[in-house]
Amino acid sequence: MAGGVGSEATRILLGVNESTIKGYPHASISSKGAFEWTLRKIIRSNTSGFKLLFLHVQVPDEDGFDDMDSIYASPEDFQNVKRRDKIRGLHLLENFVKRCHQVGVACEAWIKTGDPKEEICREVKRVQPDLLVVGSRGLGPFQRIFVGTVSEFCVKHVECPVVTIKRSAEETPQDPVDD
Amino acid sequence: MAGGVGSEATRILLGVNESTIKGYPHASISSKGAFEWTLRKIIRSNTSGFKLLFLHVQVPDEDGFDDMDSIYASPEDFQNVKRRDKIRGLHLLENFVKRCHQVGVACEAWIKTGDPKEEICREVKRVQPDLLVVGSRGLGPFQRIFVGTVSEFCVKHVECPVVTIKRSAEETPQDPVDD
Repeated sequence: MAGGVGSEATRILLGVNESTIKGYPHASISSKGAFEWTLRKIIRSNTSGFKLLFLHVQVPDEDGFDDMDSIYASPEDFQNVKRRDKIRGLHLLENFVKRCHQVGVACEAWIKTGDPKEEICREVKRVQPDLLVVGSRGLGPFQRIFVGTVSEFCVKHVECPVVTIKRSAEETPQDPVDD
Repeated sequence: MAGGVGSEATRILLGVNESTIKGYPHASISSKGAFEWTLRKIIRSNTSGFKLLFLHVQVPDEDGFDDMDSIYASPEDFQNVKRRDKIRGLHLLENFVKRCHQVGVACEAWIKTGDPKEEICREVKRVQPDLLVVGSRGLGPFQRIFVGTVSEFCVKHVECPVVTIKRSAEETPQDPVDD
């Protein structure tokens, strides 16, 4: 029977990113929410029926504001920034992969650089998952104009089914643009 | 553990409708696609972990065009139309419920009358499912202007996560507005 034991695992691609909250070196609230929702509501106890694919897209100059005071005196300084970004990205993915191993769900994780919404669409085309799960801050129309929303773009442009997990009101930080 | 054995079943609400293809007394292609996708990719072998809720919204004058030649001579004639609509709706739901029983998934099914997109949103608010699954014809922007899309409206207005299952190219009938 379709969906029965022995059929190929359902492959779920999760777009994950770092928290924007300063000094908080972890996944964003909405990424964590989307991941935990997937475990709790979809995978449940059927850990062998699913495979999670974690995609983290790094925006090249995301930390521009934090680094306003930094002085870049040599090519090496830029190398250091790149190295630091890479370490942060790996740290982010490591936590998701660790959690999957604890629960017993197969997974893969990788990093891309570029515009998150475009990279996610490109990767969906390439790896052809059964479902794309993205977290969303659940911003209102006014806020969306300024920050853009990755999830809305993906719902429109991606071929596979997409589910957007909105952040709950209790989890929303003081500044809702933060995540 | 969250999502482990013994936790409450994941409740998935499926919006289903009849085929618009004349003389085809079954579920629409996109409804069937959304249902089969849910079984195959989400529920899989974990039949006890899920409960499916089927909502069929009947549009009061949907068959206006087919009935252009009918003559309504008495209040009874209208009663007959209503009775016929009800029988068709029950027939639609019966097929989904039968299939669930075959597979061994718990389910519930009911009929509402009104504007599908508004009724779906209202019912989501009332029953609070974990996920709403709706089929979509996958129409282009030009076609959408004339026929409207229930799925787009739901994604925007519903509180719970929504997944839209687009009809595949092979399943699309000659007139893509048909379903």
